[in-house]
Amino acid sequence: MFGDARTQVSSSVDAQARVRAAYFVSDSTGITAETLGSALLANFPGIGFQRHTIPFVDTVAGAQNVVGDIHAAAERGAAPMIFATVKSAEILDVLRKSGAVIIDLLGGHLTELEDALGTTASEQLGQFHGLGDIEHYFARMRAVEYAIEHDDGQSGRALDIADVILIAPSRCGKTPTTMYLALQYGLLVANYPLTDDDFPSDGLPSTVAKYGAKCFGLTTTPLRLSQVRHERRPDSTYSSLAQCTRELRRAEDLYRRNRVPFLNSSTKSVEEMSAVIMQSMHLRS
Amino acid sequence: MFGDARTQVSSSVDAQARVRAAYFVSDSTGITAETLGSALLANFPGIGFQRHTIPFVDTVAGAQNVVGDIHAAAERGAAPMIFATVKSAEILDVLRKSGAVIIDLLGGHLTELEDALGTTASEQLGQFHGLGDIEHYFARMRAVEYAIEHDDGQSGRALDIADVILIAPSRCGKTPTTMYLALQYGLLVANYPLTDDDFPSDGLPSTVAKYGAKCFGLTTTPLRLSQVRHERRPDSTYSSLAQCTRELRRAEDLYRRNRVPFLNSSTKSVEEMSAVIMQSMHLRS
Repeated sequence: MFGDARTQVSSSVDAQARVRAAYFVSDSTGITAETLGSALLANFPGIGFQRHTIPFVDTVAGAQNVVGDIHAAAERGAAPMIFATVKSAEILDVLRKSGAVIIDLLGGHLTELEDALGTTASEQLGQFHGLGDIEHYFARMRAVEYAIEHDDGQSGRALDIADVILIAPSRCGKTPTTMYLALQYGLLVANYPLTDDDFPSDGLPSTVAKYGAKCFGLTTTPLRLSQVRHERRPDSTYSSLAQCTRELRRAEDLYRRNRVPFLNSSTKSVEEMSAVIMQSMHLRS
Repeated sequence: MFGDARTQVSSSVDAQARVRAAYFVSDSTGITAETLGSALLANFPGIGFQRHTIPFVDTVAGAQNVVGDIHAAAERGAAPMIFATVKSAEILDVLRKSGAVIIDLLGGHLTELEDALGTTASEQLGQFHGLGDIEHYFARMRAVEYAIEHDDGQSGRALDIADVILIAPSRCGKTPTTMYLALQYGLLVANYPLTDDDFPSDGLPSTVAKYGAKCFGLTTTPLRLSQVRHERRPDSTYSSLAQCTRELRRAEDLYRRNRVPFLNSSTKSVEEMSAVIMQSMHLRS
């Protein structure tokens, strides 16, 4: 019925017709459906998927609209599948009748949990992503503002309250990692660039020297750093392989001399770096 | 065996003993386990849970360490349960033998997917959160830097390449929402504060007037805004209910007059606001 789906994504219309359509359908933001659905699809690297996230499907009419899209995709030969985080049985039924393969990311687990906890799940929808606790919101907001204020060594103020201070040469991934830790976990994260000026001495840069126990270093491979810097300033000394090699070697020496834990960001996502940093610095509950 | 688990979390030792322990165990960052596990637990608001995220459990020895923690929790009477995103059957077996309830967030769905796709899942671990595409990394990094540069109307440069410009009175949630859209989706987001200076005229503030079609407004309730502002400047005119009421009314009038779509952030999380904005501005693929 669905043709050969084992085709890489390609921009040609012919090829696209043989790519499978994955719908992440949620009665809330769609973030959970998208995240877990993508994690599951990543196990099938040989197949191309066109992804569509459809949040806030919390009425039967909304679900019928989705079914319309799914039928259109099926007609294009895209063999649609649905990853659903939808609590209402009625809405799920509408999606099920579309004829697409449906992976119900909540239902089965909720039943398992009800058994384990000896109680029934509450009927309220979308509680998880609700704002709920204003304190939690304040914490995130404060953390993002702290991160902006302390990005790239801009401020030495209030470093004593930082949960972690990321140090690294320019373009090793300090800024996105800082923001991720602030937004996702409400941590107070400062970051400080290591420049050639910091290397005549053996110790940590003076601004952060008092807070050595809060420091975490980033490094990468010279080739990768050169690529990333080239993106900002093509064909400069700054982006040359020689300069990158030298700065990274000095930074790693500095980390080792000062017993600053560090990690190589070259093959890691921002999420992975954040998880490693939190684990290493014992910032996880 | 596990005693009465239906107790709210409390700081007293006695009460804690009756709270259930939830372990989010992953062979990768733990983000998926934590997100979906928390979404599932949110359906049981009457039960208190102590949450522990344990990432990078990718060896049998690592799993045995987790089992040690779980046994200690069981001895405290915390009735541990595991939410697992672990691909290896061997590691999952170790966790299973701990005696804790285990919710396998991947396994069943992978089997469903294998059936649907007519192929077997790849054996590689942690592919999803791997850096993979250097272009994707560049996009996120660029977006975060753009967001920092354009936070709070700091720069009018390159607004023509913005995907969206958030406008709102101070403290309506512009900054965290901007960062979330940048980090999570690589979108170029600027934000611009509406101050009393912007209201004598009927149009949009001059800096953003050219880009009306990119603008999205935020509003909130006067009470909520007053609470949030009070956090920054207690007992000021700025945080007074009268001032907040006036600014929000003017902002909403401005949005309506200029046909700027807007949403009320008072009961929404950053994730929900981001999802609504992307849907409204057609920023989703």
